[in-house]
Amino acid sequence: MPQLTLDHAERLTKETLLRAGACESMAVAAAQHLVKAEAQGIASHGLIRAPQYANHLQTGRVNGQAKPILVSGSTAAQRVDAQHGLSFEACSLAVDTAIKLAQVNGIGLVGVFNSHHAGVLVDQMRPVADAGMIGLAFANTPSAMPAAGGKTAFFGTNPISAIFPREHHSPLLIDMSLSEAARGKVIAASQAGKPIPLGWALDANGAPTTDAKAALAGSMLPLGGGAKGSLLAMMIEVMVGALIGSHFSHEAMSYFDESTDPPSMGQCFIVINPRALAGSVSYYQRFESLLTDMLADDGVRLPGALRYEREAKAQSDGVYISDDLFSKLKQAAG
Amino acid sequence: MPQLTLDHAERLTKETLLRAGACESMAVAAAQHLVKAEAQGIASHGLIRAPQYANHLQTGRVNGQAKPILVSGSTAAQRVDAQHGLSFEACSLAVDTAIKLAQVNGIGLVGVFNSHHAGVLVDQMRPVADAGMIGLAFANTPSAMPAAGGKTAFFGTNPISAIFPREHHSPLLIDMSLSEAARGKVIAASQAGKPIPLGWALDANGAPTTDAKAALAGSMLPLGGGAKGSLLAMMIEVMVGALIGSHFSHEAMSYFDESTDPPSMGQCFIVINPRALAGSVSYYQRFESLLTDMLADDGVRLPGALRYEREAKAQSDGVYISDDLFSKLKQAAG
Repeated sequence: MPQLTLDHAERLTKETLLRAGACESMAVAAAQHLVKAEAQGIASHGLIRAPQYANHLQTGRVNGQAKPILVSGSTAAQRVDAQHGLSFEACSLAVDTAIKLAQVNGIGLVGVFNSHHAGVLVDQMRPVADAGMIGLAFANTPSAMPAAGGKTAFFGTNPISAIFPREHHSPLLIDMSLSEAARGKVIAASQAGKPIPLGWALDANGAPTTDAKAALAGSMLPLGGGAKGSLLAMMIEVMVGALIGSHFSHEAMSYFDESTDPPSMGQCFIVINPRALAGSVSYYQRFESLLTDMLADDGVRLPGALRYEREAKAQSDGVYISDDLFSKLKQAAG
Repeated sequence: MPQLTLDHAERLTKETLLRAGACESMAVAAAQHLVKAEAQGIASHGLIRAPQYANHLQTGRVNGQAKPILVSGSTAAQRVDAQHGLSFEACSLAVDTAIKLAQVNGIGLVGVFNSHHAGVLVDQMRPVADAGMIGLAFANTPSAMPAAGGKTAFFGTNPISAIFPREHHSPLLIDMSLSEAARGKVIAASQAGKPIPLGWALDANGAPTTDAKAALAGSMLPLGGGAKGSLLAMMIEVMVGALIGSHFSHEAMSYFDESTDPPSMGQCFIVINPRALAGSVSYYQRFESLLTDMLADDGVRLPGALRYEREAKAQSDGVYISDDLFSKLKQAAG
């Protein structure tokens, strides 16, 4: 399995995207994001996405020259038009703007529309924690899960993320999709020819299945036996689709399908300033007390801790990717 | 089973709370809320709570003379001190304030601390939909679920709610706790001497159980096999406890336990104004299109529809409560 330094991985990814038609800033932002995901061990959102993004750039599904635009809204709620580019520069503009709004108003919401795959959603919010603020994010993705009681994919696996700064530690990261299991795990099982547990997915006829290939042709099951995960997915769909102006999940083709239609997905970032509420001193003190008490129960781990461990290790050891992916990237990067 | 008109149920509840020491406005607000819950078929949050609230008023766990106070914060983020009263007047002040903030700024967040049981959280947000806005709410509750990997109750079942206005229909209601099943269902099973499904709860030793009584002595399992529900509960805990200034779930005694300590739970309301984002016209149109497409899959129901049906029926038929509860209320109301 080829081992790449993070620099090498970033260069390869950047060149792949540049040659597919991305402008310099888009390629850099995406390469940094994908390498960070790979370094954290989130392979489903890592370098494996580079050939996919490149394909979208080549077919015109992604506009490689897009420059995100801040759309005027209200004092504390605004929007960013991603102009059908990759999501990273648009989300960065949205997050930076939401921080500024929260500095003045105590809270800031910035929504992104005409956007694309959000990547590791919580990573888009790292600057929020650097500013000593709290971030919540919601995003939609092409259809993958039925609504509660349904048989066919309707909602995306619509991730929810949160970032909470700590005083002498890296921020706490919460980052989850709303399917019972990540679709990437089903793809991996399918590629390895392995079955999946019952309760993860439905087949194309809406019947429960343990066959990974049948599941990919069907739909993922939402969190919690279908009902509650579906309600959360719907909540995000209304916010991102109806309120912010993106497509709904079921109006977009899967990122994995051949299509020339821009997915026009959306992201919503809410930044909250502790100084407007119980105050920063109280926030940091109370938060540490919560973590100390929580970790007193054996077996409880800090969310996101594994990501930090892996990322630190990857700084020295680099990342390992498959021969197949390495060949693809070398060829694409030229 | 005694049948009560809604007026009768409200009078009984109000008198029960007044005689336990609530001031007039607190008793009225609570009685209206509990009867509305009962009318919607949410018995676990209905009249059965009146004797519990009365007990809390009598022991000083709830301050019957509390008048909620708006605490100054920022332009768009403020707090309400519930002063250890019942939650309803404080949440009403918070929601009305958040609506005003969102009218000016596009978004408003108002957090409530020194508060009590939130009741049916989404019902606190009905005025948000009346104002043509979107509401999100989070609340914490005394410990009932372990953190992911843990053996003892740490987080509350911390509900998430959302309300979305529609143009010619009642608003869409999303309202869920983060346990795999509602604790009220375990209480009901325990009272009926029935088992519960595996995956709902752990016993006092942290082992999975189907014994409802053992489950009540132990903890509820969070949504989605423990992990994702626990992350969402933690997100709410940090927001409500560290950011807004309430107690954490594990710092409060259960509402069902004997105690004289005010629970000091918290609620967080976020109100968003569609006019600041894609606009109200677009919001209403797109939202209806989402619902139409969603309901095209047989078996999918509109969230909250059953509550509206039951509430309409209760307007004419009243509500049915147990003999035991009816006796308790008659005695308490004098």
